[in-house]
Amino acid sequence: MTKLKLTTLAVIGVGLIGGSFSRALKAADVVQLVIGYDFNPQNLAEAVHLGVVDRAAASYAEAVSNADVVFLAVPVRSMTSVVETCVPYLPAGCIVTDGGSVKSELVSSCEQLMPDGCFFVGGHPIAGTENSGASASFAELFQGRRCILTPTKHTNQKALELVHSLWEVAGSKVECMDPLTHDRVFAAVSHLPHLVAYALVHAVAGSAEDEENILAFSAGGFRDFTRIASSDPSMWRDIALMNRLPLMSLLDRYQHEFNTLKEKVAAGDGAWLEDYFTTSKRLRDEII
Amino acid sequence: MTKLKLTTLAVIGVGLIGGSFSRALKAADVVQLVIGYDFNPQNLAEAVHLGVVDRAAASYAEAVSNADVVFLAVPVRSMTSVVETCVPYLPAGCIVTDGGSVKSELVSSCEQLMPDGCFFVGGHPIAGTENSGASASFAELFQGRRCILTPTKHTNQKALELVHSLWEVAGSKVECMDPLTHDRVFAAVSHLPHLVAYALVHAVAGSAEDEENILAFSAGGFRDFTRIASSDPSMWRDIALMNRLPLMSLLDRYQHEFNTLKEKVAAGDGAWLEDYFTTSKRLRDEII
Repeated sequence: MTKLKLTTLAVIGVGLIGGSFSRALKAADVVQLVIGYDFNPQNLAEAVHLGVVDRAAASYAEAVSNADVVFLAVPVRSMTSVVETCVPYLPAGCIVTDGGSVKSELVSSCEQLMPDGCFFVGGHPIAGTENSGASASFAELFQGRRCILTPTKHTNQKALELVHSLWEVAGSKVECMDPLTHDRVFAAVSHLPHLVAYALVHAVAGSAEDEENILAFSAGGFRDFTRIASSDPSMWRDIALMNRLPLMSLLDRYQHEFNTLKEKVAAGDGAWLEDYFTTSKRLRDEII
Repeated sequence: MTKLKLTTLAVIGVGLIGGSFSRALKAADVVQLVIGYDFNPQNLAEAVHLGVVDRAAASYAEAVSNADVVFLAVPVRSMTSVVETCVPYLPAGCIVTDGGSVKSELVSSCEQLMPDGCFFVGGHPIAGTENSGASASFAELFQGRRCILTPTKHTNQKALELVHSLWEVAGSKVECMDPLTHDRVFAAVSHLPHLVAYALVHAVAGSAEDEENILAFSAGGFRDFTRIASSDPSMWRDIALMNRLPLMSLLDRYQHEFNTLKEKVAAGDGAWLEDYFTTSKRLRDEII
């Protein structure tokens, strides 16, 4: 690439992520035309009305049939079936990339679905807000945030370089990681903590005999600690299902840690507890 | 009380909490003399040098023997034995109060230890920083923060009112709660979350095959979620031991929630998971 300029970008799923990607590339003037498609017609109309995309397609086929690049920002569980639907209409040379937060199965499926002369590059922008929909999108969402690309031995290098450049233009710090490593790392630093927080909220909310006081005194650590338990339920259902294998390994490990800790509290083993907490503090201070 | 003015306040344990209480009352000019005592002579010398207290006592006996009010800010496990040591030297009419973060056993023991004509009032200021020692103390630590007092049927009303006034002068929003309710509420909103975070750090740090990437990507939710796992290990050992009964009840409840959640992930039960996460979000948004 001498100078980055796309003729047509198709954005499938014009929500927070898809809309912000479009806005960022339009703001940087690296794309002539952005065509959007969304299974929710109201959201799609809103996207056009707000200038998030230049125009709306009436179908997946229309959205992708002239695209240099297709960006998929639909729920992660729908990604593969959306790619299947689009495949017959992809023009030669088209690069398909996505923003899904679980990668192994998805990347493998999408690579297999690509027709000859079309190229898939998996991606995962580490960005978001508590809002959703085209109206929540903004060009700066990815500024300074990491975006992970997950190339494999099948990935076309020029396609990878192009997608890499687009995310840099959008403001991201781009890193590459193989899909399985990605899924293991996010199982550890994100998926496990989310499940732990969900269970914690249930446990605390269930101790309702002191509900009024819990309400009053949850303002401190509990609020910060459980913020992630307010995340989108259907997205987290999908993540738990799609990243099940790496996640189960961490759930096992965590269960073992928790059960041991509980036994030691029950036994009143102060020396063990102090040692365990000291190690936690050291590990956490090292990790962060 | 017409006008709040103490002749002598004794502060036992001149660290962050004890030192800040002294500074706050001195700043508000409601005490003529603050005498400090600390089992660490260097910290005590530092407290005098910095003006955190007016002068240092050479012993518990000397510290308390002329005090209107004794404020105990030693580690919660040492509180009862410190009170035992002080009891023979408490002057008639002396009010003893504390800042320990677990209350039931402590309040009960201290009430029994009080000589006739001396009065115990349990307290727990909800405030702190990551620093410790006299040099970390500051007069504004309690400004706008809650302080819970834990009176019982044995509590002297005038003593309770005085301690209440002192914490208000220090800037706290004071609330009363019976000791067992206090311990149950804090087991739920603070102690359980801390133990969960300690176990989580061990589980994640133990998945070391991807250590480098975990290091790089822990910057998001994981960092916020595990901040409390960097808390003082010996304090949390004491809390786990001293609040064992209410805490075990919550550890049981949480273990049940977590184990069920893990089973449903293993079974790939998407409908159950979405429902569970939806309830978490609703409960959390209600609580906060």
